[in-house]
Formats: sequence, C-alpha cells, structure tokens
Amino acid sequence: MTDDMATFRSITAATGEAVGGPFATHGAADVEAACFAAAAAFDAYRATDNEARAAFLERIGEEIVAIGDDLIATACRESGLPRARIEGERGRTVGQLKLFAGVVRRGGWMGLRVDPAQPDRAPLPRPDLRLRTVPLGPVAVFGASNFPLAFSTAGGDTASALAAGCPVVVKGHPAHPATGALVAGAIRAAVSACGMPEGVFGHLVGPGNELGSALVRDPRIAAVGFTGSRAGGLALVRLAQAREVPVPVYAEMSSINPVLLLPEALAARGAALGTAFVGSLTMGAGQFCTNPGLVLAIEGEGLDAFVEAASTAMRAAAPATMLTGGIHAAYEQGVAALDAHQDVEPIARGCAGEGVAQGQAALFATTAGRFLADRALGHEIFGAASLLVRCRDEAEMRAVLLAAEGQLTATIQMDAGDTALAARLVPLLERKAGRILANGWPTGVEVAHAMVHGGPYPATSDGRTTSVGSLAIDRFLRPVSYQNLPAELLPPVLRDGGAGDAPVLLDGAIVTH
Amino acid sequence: MTDDMATFRSITAATGEAVGGPFATHGAADVEAACFAAAAAFDAYRATDNEARAAFLERIGEEIVAIGDDLIATACRESGLPRARIEGERGRTVGQLKLFAGVVRRGGWMGLRVDPAQPDRAPLPRPDLRLRTVPLGPVAVFGASNFPLAFSTAGGDTASALAAGCPVVVKGHPAHPATGALVAGAIRAAVSACGMPEGVFGHLVGPGNELGSALVRDPRIAAVGFTGSRAGGLALVRLAQAREVPVPVYAEMSSINPVLLLPEALAARGAALGTAFVGSLTMGAGQFCTNPGLVLAIEGEGLDAFVEAASTAMRAAAPATMLTGGIHAAYEQGVAALDAHQDVEPIARGCAGEGVAQGQAALFATTAGRFLADRALGHEIFGAASLLVRCRDEAEMRAVLLAAEGQLTATIQMDAGDTALAARLVPLLERKAGRILANGWPTGVEVAHAMVHGGPYPATSDGRTTSVGSLAIDRFLRPVSYQNLPAELLPPVLRDGGAGDAPVLLDGAIVTH
Repeated sequence: MTDDMATFRSITAATGEAVGGPFATHGAADVEAACFAAAAAFDAYRATDNEARAAFLERIGEEIVAIGDDLIATACRESGLPRARIEGERGRTVGQLKLFAGVVRRGGWMGLRVDPAQPDRAPLPRPDLRLRTVPLGPVAVFGASNFPLAFSTAGGDTASALAAGCPVVVKGHPAHPATGALVAGAIRAAVSACGMPEGVFGHLVGPGNELGSALVRDPRIAAVGFTGSRAGGLALVRLAQAREVPVPVYAEMSSINPVLLLPEALAARGAALGTAFVGSLTMGAGQFCTNPGLVLAIEGEGLDAFVEAASTAMRAAAPATMLTGGIHAAYEQGVAALDAHQDVEPIARGCAGEGVAQGQAALFATTAGRFLADRALGHEIFGAASLLVRCRDEAEMRAVLLAAEGQLTATIQMDAGDTALAARLVPLLERKAGRILANGWPTGVEVAHAMVHGGPYPATSDGRTTSVGSLAIDRFLRPVSYQNLPAELLPPVLRDGGAGDAPVLLDGAIVTH
Repeated sequence: MTDDMATFRSITAATGEAVGGPFATHGAADVEAACFAAAAAFDAYRATDNEARAAFLERIGEEIVAIGDDLIATACRESGLPRARIEGERGRTVGQLKLFAGVVRRGGWMGLRVDPAQPDRAPLPRPDLRLRTVPLGPVAVFGASNFPLAFSTAGGDTASALAAGCPVVVKGHPAHPATGALVAGAIRAAVSACGMPEGVFGHLVGPGNELGSALVRDPRIAAVGFTGSRAGGLALVRLAQAREVPVPVYAEMSSINPVLLLPEALAARGAALGTAFVGSLTMGAGQFCTNPGLVLAIEGEGLDAFVEAASTAMRAAAPATMLTGGIHAAYEQGVAALDAHQDVEPIARGCAGEGVAQGQAALFATTAGRFLADRALGHEIFGAASLLVRCRDEAEMRAVLLAAEGQLTATIQMDAGDTALAARLVPLLERKAGRILANGWPTGVEVAHAMVHGGPYPATSDGRTTSVGSLAIDRFLRPVSYQNLPAELLPPVLRDGGAGDAPVLLDGAIVTH
C-alpha cells in the first residue's frame, strides 16, 4: 500500500533505542486512498442520527480502554511520560469522547433556528426559513507529540470532528507510532462495531513533512486540526491558503502563558508561590502548551522570597525524559541562548540527567526594559524553562503585556488587596489570551463546556475557537438555511416537531423543548 | 486632514455627470487617525452594557430616517436604482439595525457558559469555569456598490460589528460618496447622542485601492467585512493573511446561484417559470449577489415553454441603469464573451438602452457537456445575464452541480412528483450552497435569524458564516474562559445571577432564566 519501501521505527524516549518491527511510511497512494474513502463516507456518516453518532464516540472510548495495559506501557515507553500521567491521559481521552457524545445527544451543536413564514406580511410575505449546521467535510488531524493519547489519534480534534459529522484522516505523530497504531485499531473496531462507513476514519503515518503536506493539499480535505510547533502550524496554514479552494486550519501553536505576581500576593505568600510555580513549570518535563514560560512581578516585598523558594525547588527538580531527542535538542538550544544572553540573568537550574533526552529545568530573570528591547525573549522554549521579568511598577507590567504576543492563558496571582490592580489588568488580558486564571496555574486544562484552549495569534492560527472542550465542535460546522422547503426535503431535525429536546432559536428566542 | 489634495466627485449613474462639490480623498494620515481612534474607543465601547448598545443601534436607524428624502434622492441619483427600491432598502437598513438591537438585548450572542467548581471531585477538584464571547477589535468594513444603504456605510457588516462591540472604520464605496456622507453623518449623530466614544465609528473615502489596502494592513484592525467582486475580496484576503498578525476577512464575493428546473414542475408550469425567472433575473438590473445566473433543466416537456416565455419576457425587459460605468463595461464584456462563445447559443436579449450604463438583459443556453468542458462558463457576470444548461438526465445535472464552485444559494423548482429527485439532490446542494430554496427565487434575502447569506468558497472567503441575518454577529466575536476568578474580576454578566434573561449553558444544558 505504500509508494516505496521506506520504513521507520518506534523509539523508546528514555533510551533512544528502536523497539519492535518497522512501520511502513505512507505515501501519496495512501493519502489518495484515505481521502477517497473519507469523501465517500461523508454523506452517509453525516446522515447518521445523533444517538448513533454519540454511541460511536462512546464505543471508541470503550475500545481504547479495552486495549488494556499494553496501551499504557507503550505510550509510556514512546513518550517517556510517567505511568500516572499516561493513565490520567487515557481517562481524559475517554472522558473527552463521552463529553462530545453528550454534546451530540443534546443537539445544541446543530444550531437550529426557525423563522416561521408570515404569508400576510406587507409589503412582501416572509418565507419560511429554517437553519441548521452541517459538517464541513473530511478533516485532517495532526496528532501532537506531547499528549500521545489526549491530543493525538483519538484526541480532542478527532473527537470533535467526528462529533460534528466529519470523517477524519489522522496523520499520526512519528514519535509514538506504536501507541497510534493501537488507538487507530480501537477506532477501527468501533467503526466496525457501530456499522459506520469504513472511510470515516483513516490513519497515515510516517516521518518527515511530505505526508502531511500531501494530506492538507488534497482537495477532499475540508479542514485541518493541528497541535504542535509554530513553524509546523504556519506551514500547514500556508499550504491550506494556497489551495484552489482554501480551507480553515485550526493550529494550536505556541504560548508562553504569562503569570502575573501582584504585590499583595507576593508579600503574603511569595515563598509558597515560588514553590508552586516550579511544580507547574516542571510537570511533564514542562512539555505543556500552557507551561508558565513568563513570570511578571512588580518589584517589592516578597519577590526575593519567591525567587529563593523557586530556586530551591528548581535545584531539587529531578531531570525528566523529554518526548524526543529533537525536542530535547531544541530545548537545550533555547536554554543555552537565554543563558548566553547578555541581558538575562540565570537564576537556577534543575538537576542534570544522565540518560538521553533528559530535560534539565531552568529559570532566568531579566527586567521589563530589557525584555521590551528584544522580542526574541518572548518566544516559546518548549520545556521546563521560564523567564522572570522584574517590573518597576504597573505601567511596566502593562507595557510587557501589551508587547507580548497572543497567548493561550494568562494567570493572576493575587490577594484581596490586589483586586483593584487586577481589575485594571483583566481587559488587557482578555485581548491577549483565551483563558484567564486567578490563583492557579495554567497547566491542567479542564475538558469542559466553558473551557477555551485557544487564543489570539500566534497562540493559535484562529483565535475565534478552542481545541479543548465542547465548543471545539463548532470548528467543523457551517450553517445552511432552508427556504420554503417541503417537509419531505427538510432534514428531519428541522421538520415541525423534529427537533426533539434540542434547543431551537424560534423567531430569535430560545425554545428548549 | 488628507495626505494630498486629491479629490473625487459624486457621479450620477444615469448620466455619468459629476454633481456637487469634490470629496477629499483620504490618505495614510486619515487611516492612521481613524484606526488610532477606533483602538482607543475599543475598551470603552465593548464595556457598554447590552441596553446601551442596543439603544445606540436603534438611534442610528432613527438618524438615518431623519435625513429624510435627501437620502433617498441622493442614493437614487448615485446608484441609478429606482425610488421604490431605495426606499425599501432604507427600511431594510433600519430593520437590520433593529434586529441587531434585539439580538444584543436578548444576550444569546454572549455565548455564556458556566461549569461550576467541584471542589470535592477526585482525583482533582474541578475549577470554576465561566465563558463569554468578547469582540475581536476594530473592524474594517468595505461598503458595496449594489446596496448603497443596506450593504454599505450603515449596512449589515457595520450593524453586526457594532452589535458585537467592535468599533468600525468604513471604507465608503466611491460610487456613492454623497449617500455615504449622509449616512456617516447619521451614525456620528447617534454616537454623539448616545454618548459613545467618538472613535467607535470612522469613515474613509476615496477611489482606487490604496486606501483600502492601508486600512486592512493597519495592525489595529482585527477583522474585515467586504461585499464585492471576487478579485477585490481575494486581494483583501491576501493582504490580511500577509500581516504580522493575520486577521479574518469575511468577503462575500461571487455566486451564480443555480436554479434547478425539475421535470414535473417544468411540465406543469414551464411558461410561468420562464416569466417569473426573468423577473428575478432583471430586478435591480441584475445587480444582486443572489442573481440567478445559471439555470439547469432536464430536457423534457415544458422546457420549450420555459424558454419561449423567458424569451418573451426578456425581449420586453426594459433597459436599466447600472451602478457605475465600470460595472456596465464589465457586464457588456462578459455578455459579449458568452455571445461569441462557440459552445453557447444566444436565446434572447432585453431592450437596448440609450443613455450611459444602460444594462441590457441577456439569456444564453448550452448543454451540460459543453458547460463541463469550459470552467469559464461557470464564472459570474455581474448583471442581468444568465445561462441555461440543458441536461439530458439527472446524472448530467449532478455532474454540473458537482463541478460548480461554492454558491450563496441553490434553488429547486419542483412539483410533488419531483420530490424523490429533489431529495436526492439536497445533500449535494447542502455541500455547495449556504441557502437552499424551493419554488422561489434567490433574489430577495430576508434579514432574519435563520438566514444564511454566505456559502462555500468562492461564494465567500469563509463559508462558516453569514453576512445577512442575526448570525452575522458571530463573525466578530471570540470566546474567553475565566477560571476561578473572584466575582469582582468577572464581567458582570458572568457573576452569579448576572446573566439576567440571557441564556446560559450550565454544565452543558441551556438555562434560559
């Protein structure tokens, strides 16, 4: 089935050793076959009713659980992430599929609207108008390396696209091919068990960029979901825009997630904040999109205690296996550049590791003035590195935030006495980030209805959306209006009484039953 | 206030004569001033409550009506459109502002979502998460020539952007500068009367493309609304994508709006359909985005009667003043190209006019096979020209539809006996168009909640949206999530009990009070 005999292997993150038999690299013929099948499956799949589609999503979750410990062990081996994390991630992946099953059943995603005819309106009668959303078409999903389950083969993009009624062609991440193969098998089992058209799920694997480029260029692909680097995301955006028919790319790319330490909080609990901060920074070897890579503090009481506690925690931070040798090398390079920067002061490092790809945490400091003088200081270093920016006053903190790029999150550490200052900052944070937190840490993204894991460019390529939480389904839908259609031609949900319990906007007012 | 002393004049469409004093062409300094003011006004404007913003939208409508007959006469003179049409368009413009006032008051646009904290959840507590939409920022609106009121200075894009909380900078269409100046004055009067920040509305005018390009490139512009030609829309899309921070462009560009004549309908009322079709085609000199420029008919009983009646109506169709000399010239060129095409048969022309810019309606015919052989036959000719494509059977009709580009509308003319055939076609039409009509004509776009005036590329640059109807407000919004924020820092609508009558998605279920 492949164009040539190229193969690649599964690598154990902690040792760099290849394990198991080779995986065949998919080629142009495989892209063609997967996209053909996805397009052929589209009309049948989108015509399935909400209950059938919800059951399919739940079945995928069950099949993933049914793989058992082999999945956990394989994902741990390939990612270098600890067992508790991977077990939690499996729970999150299954929970995500269940969340979307619930969303599909409730039916709000269909965006039903009805404006009944007004045949006697003068000067012109009003037609009968009914609206629902329809899925965009086959979606290409690029699995991420840092969440081998929750943001990969059966992750949030796949779950939300399938929920919307879109077939999915996954480009599996080459850092965890064995994990991806297990999950793809689970999805295929669910496709079969639920009697879904086979082309509703395709799975392509291979190293390098050619495979993904061919997928995005395929005219049958109607949208793209991606989580990864800024360079990778922007390359896909350019490919999608250059097509004869451009398509949307939802790329979740880079963010340094500023944490604001306000004066009263610092004074009251500077040391505790320093310790907790390093806990958030070093979790999962710092390999979170929401990792706190930038800390802004107004000089004053408690900042020294914060730095001292953070340094102590940092020096005790164990080395952690990073996802791939390439990610580790890029991290080392980023840290070395900060270390060598004349306007940046090294504060503390974590413990050095002995194996391959061992990430060593790093904390640096600079001043607002120096930060503003070099935009490169605002770029993401993927891993457990962070930069503390000392601000003389509120004005400097605002200046740094204004200069910052778009972010996934912004966090305020505050006490009651900081409220007035925080209230002045929130409107600015709303313009810069998709999620604003108080007295927490940005790592840990709840899969919920009110979650936004998105944000202004370049945190994502499209800040109008989220890639985590139930709102993510909207990315793969578009509205269609039906004017004066006989009932037999209307989609069943738009016929009189056909909406069931789904909410309907009737003449502009929501009716829930 | 302008960079140089360039000026331009208001042209009377029917005569080509310049009338009234010159308008100064705005330049780079004016773009800078308008964008500076819009950005400065943004936070204050978006902080206004729903009632204040709704009253502002209504006041704009009142101020437009208060201009009185001068507005009607000026718009008629500049556009060449008849008085009844322009009076209707004023009503539509005011109605549109009222519709958005209602939408703003009801509050569904805020997309409120609340997932309450679960402090006792194991293994980790769930945080308190609340979500609302926020406006994107200042919006650049490009007025359209063909609706000098409803799609121009205070048209749908302006109304929906202001409703969303975005300041607006209008790039007025140079084909109706005097109309635009009157409407801009009305908006400014409303800004002042309602105590809104002055920068909430800016108005720039000038011929040529430089002014609009500078506006879209300005880093303070956060989104663009446009209605016009495909070349113009795509140029703005490219500019917006090339920015350091790319922004969304909602361009409503080109559509030929296929009308499907199904066999039973043709047999029963071919002649009546022919007459009614020409009425839709020639309305407003054919200068509608939803003009029926493509008719697909399956050969059979009644098609001859359709052609004969259409020809008769066509030959009686009065010439009509087109919007500008440039639009008229492009129309003549498009019609001449069809006339000279070896695979196209001229059917009938409307009456020739004597003045300048007099559009003469035109009907042509070809076969499905020939249509499929030359993609240029599927391109829009803006004006009252249409192409009848004779299909041998359903398969040929499907093939033509499959080959067609994305459309704003698709219309089915059918009788009861056509239902099975129509039902087979609807899924295909859903993939090709934003609105599907039965037994009507696509011209005439109701401003309503369930309207979609949008469609797959290249009908628009973003088929996930609409530019007419209340759903248009979503184009200018993005979601923000608030995690564990103290009540004082939450937007008032997200505090406990603060939503008023606005719908809230509470733990995934809609609550309406």
